[in-house]
Amino acid sequence: MEKIRIGIAGYGNVGKGVEKAVNAVSDMQLIAIFSRRDPAAFKESSVQILPLNAAETKIDEIDVMILCGGSAADLPEQGPYFASLFNIVDSFDTHAKIPEYLASIDQVAKKTTAVIASGWDPGLFSMIRALSGSILPDGSSYTFWGSGVSQGHSDAIRQIDGVKHAVQYTIPFDDAVNSVRNGERPFLTPRQKHLRKCFVVSLPDADKDKIAEKIKKMPNYFIDYETTVDFIEDDEYFENHTEMPHGGVVLQSGKTGENNHLIEFSLKLDSNPEFTGSIMVAYARAAYRMSKEGLFGAKTVFDVPLAYLSDKDRDSLIKELL
Amino acid sequence: MEKIRIGIAGYGNVGKGVEKAVNAVSDMQLIAIFSRRDPAAFKESSVQILPLNAAETKIDEIDVMILCGGSAADLPEQGPYFASLFNIVDSFDTHAKIPEYLASIDQVAKKTTAVIASGWDPGLFSMIRALSGSILPDGSSYTFWGSGVSQGHSDAIRQIDGVKHAVQYTIPFDDAVNSVRNGERPFLTPRQKHLRKCFVVSLPDADKDKIAEKIKKMPNYFIDYETTVDFIEDDEYFENHTEMPHGGVVLQSGKTGENNHLIEFSLKLDSNPEFTGSIMVAYARAAYRMSKEGLFGAKTVFDVPLAYLSDKDRDSLIKELL
Repeated sequence: MEKIRIGIAGYGNVGKGVEKAVNAVSDMQLIAIFSRRDPAAFKESSVQILPLNAAETKIDEIDVMILCGGSAADLPEQGPYFASLFNIVDSFDTHAKIPEYLASIDQVAKKTTAVIASGWDPGLFSMIRALSGSILPDGSSYTFWGSGVSQGHSDAIRQIDGVKHAVQYTIPFDDAVNSVRNGERPFLTPRQKHLRKCFVVSLPDADKDKIAEKIKKMPNYFIDYETTVDFIEDDEYFENHTEMPHGGVVLQSGKTGENNHLIEFSLKLDSNPEFTGSIMVAYARAAYRMSKEGLFGAKTVFDVPLAYLSDKDRDSLIKELL
Repeated sequence: MEKIRIGIAGYGNVGKGVEKAVNAVSDMQLIAIFSRRDPAAFKESSVQILPLNAAETKIDEIDVMILCGGSAADLPEQGPYFASLFNIVDSFDTHAKIPEYLASIDQVAKKTTAVIASGWDPGLFSMIRALSGSILPDGSSYTFWGSGVSQGHSDAIRQIDGVKHAVQYTIPFDDAVNSVRNGERPFLTPRQKHLRKCFVVSLPDADKDKIAEKIKKMPNYFIDYETTVDFIEDDEYFENHTEMPHGGVVLQSGKTGENNHLIEFSLKLDSNPEFTGSIMVAYARAAYRMSKEGLFGAKTVFDVPLAYLSDKDRDSLIKELL
């Protein structure tokens, strides 16, 4: 069997997760990793690391480029650039900017297939929201994130003067989740859904009260939430707070006449970037197949039939899993 | 907006569930219900009830026929017949015979779109098995059914001499589900996964011990399971055991390197037939749209992009749910 030849653009945590996932499946081959950083900076990798701008020289050797850069600064530029040259997959996750990003990709993906926003939210959770909302239109949809580390919120805390290290856990309130599970279809404000629990290592002489206040009053990130701030020491931080677990749950609570129904989809992940990488690898398989069929342009998880994701052929899927 | 015109073939519990679901959405119109039984036998229905063989006269008035007959006797005949005339959706659920059934439909659906096996298992659970297996290939998949009423097992008990009424609840063992949730990836025999709890009303003078033994030793249905049989009276039966709740859970427990991940999808349904009907209605929308695009032939839930299920257009889905 001819293997699907994969390139990775961006070699942070997600890029490393993709590398692991590609090397774990038998129908793909990792060709190269592209990074903006000096390749000499990386101690270990399974294939050659090349400068990002060397990708153009590899067009004939790579079937799908998996983009692992950040949504804020990297992808708005890299997405359209790579989609004009390669089939791509990314996990663009700035929800509000997806339509604009999709359009920018669609404009250039004339002869390539580009699956965007294919992580778990946006991504798997979006699929469940669409599927369950289509089945139970007389219903309410709820998404809870966590317990897990929010990289975005952790980064935001690290920007505050006097902060040395920081991590933020997003924790859904059990009461809120259980109320949904009980079919109560509650109205929930952001404050009622999630606790934001922060652990901070401050610099010597930093004003801890001031740091805590700055966190709790930070617009967009914290002000609308119940937020706790605990100050810890370096050793506790490195011992207990450097992993990247995450997860969450999507619920659809709905009715048919007088009868109640609950659809629930949940994830418990030891490593957020490795799981995200694994999803992108499955969608890379889909992008490859769709491009072979001439299904070009910007696609989302709503557009990709599930049969394209599996390394089993359709007949086997139907026989074994339907 | 032009409404999608729906017919229902088969007016048992699932047919009534479909009727309810069609009447609850704004983009569809129920045209007629077709039944083998004498239309005079039905007290209430929202539209005309016609004999099954009158369907051919309605070809130009119906966009999608939703087949609600049984998988054992009705669908193997009705599926190919209706698929040669109409776009169809069904919830064929004899897992082992799906490939054969699919082929028989595909052969005649040359100018129609036929989505088969679109209930919740097969159906939604199959989708989650395929999706989660594609993401976590180094993993194990588990499906538990219940707690809920198995119509097939209840019917099987009713065939035994001396049985007046019977209901069988399939109940997953908590220990088994929790072992999967804990990432233990256990090997589970049928006996270790589900309890089969039977409530039987016997005829006067029937030999209860003999009935219980016949149930517990029934091949395929009960012999491989832990089975309990309780004899009850008519009034208890009618008070507590005539509802049709069901549900279940699909789990994928897998790894990326040393990290564990759990994907879980569960359903808690007050009414199995109404929920099944609601799924089929969403797939009727998809069948209609796919037929408009010339995507003819027999399709499964693995072949239908989620965007086709929703009454929202793709742009709205992307903006609101991605």
